[in-house]
Amino acid sequence: MLTTYKATARKLKNGLQVESESRGFKIIMDEPRDFGGTDAAMTPVEALLCALGACQAIVATAFAKSQGFALEGFHVELEGDLDPDGFLGLSDVRKGFQEIRYKMHFKTNETQEKAIAYADFIEGVCPVGDCIENGVKLVRSGVVRE
Amino acid sequence: MLTTYKATARKLKNGLQVESESRGFKIIMDEPRDFGGTDAAMTPVEALLCALGACQAIVATAFAKSQGFALEGFHVELEGDLDPDGFLGLSDVRKGFQEIRYKMHFKTNETQEKAIAYADFIEGVCPVGDCIENGVKLVRSGVVRE
Repeated sequence: MLTTYKATARKLKNGLQVESESRGFKIIMDEPRDFGGTDAAMTPVEALLCALGACQAIVATAFAKSQGFALEGFHVELEGDLDPDGFLGLSDVRKGFQEIRYKMHFKTNETQEKAIAYADFIEGVCPVGDCIENGVKLVRSGVVRE
Repeated sequence: MLTTYKATARKLKNGLQVESESRGFKIIMDEPRDFGGTDAAMTPVEALLCALGACQAIVATAFAKSQGFALEGFHVELEGDLDPDGFLGLSDVRKGFQEIRYKMHFKTNETQEKAIAYADFIEGVCPVGDCIENGVKLVRSGVVRE
């Protein structure tokens, strides 16, 4: 059933700090001092990597039993290449990540072959991975002056 | 200059809870009870919306002066449509968001025309928006058993 997920992001008084909120849960984001922030929290592009990794970890955990994979632990290291000259307007490179890589770590007694097959499964199910890999239509529904 | 941003996401002991970390800053994510979680934190797809909104808010704030836009406040409401039947394997719909909409709120004395032009500018600069709208190549760099 199509479900609508919601969030709000609000500029705080403090430099570039932003408070994002969904269902009452909050995340503060900021920028490093080099980019005019106060370095009080992670940046939005780092939060994007965090959301991708968390989605993979949740899928890995949630489907282990039904997929017959004996999972005792999971973590994933992610990294993404981005050239700030893009969003700073100093270069024509794209503004976002040019590539995102990740290494999945399974705590398991399963074989390497089964671990690779389960990694394939996780990639095929992960909703955030689908969004980032395949893109999502973004629609601006309004501009309000207050 | 191409910069590599990093994060790690780790399954916690508690059900589906995950701790994601970047430069020492942490976000906990979880799932609602309906999906087997403990509803202790937002979900990764909600965090994706939060990252997008925060990125727009930071761009709105950081570039206001150089773009000659008198910005006194900014927030953005976001929503995304996703059918959980996709990742649950109950339907062939895509796993991620089918569409993301957002309404930008500017606290400003500028005209509506200038506010719309500034919204266009924000969309064109926002790194997370670029990632989600245009997609990013995802590369699995390894599967490690521990």
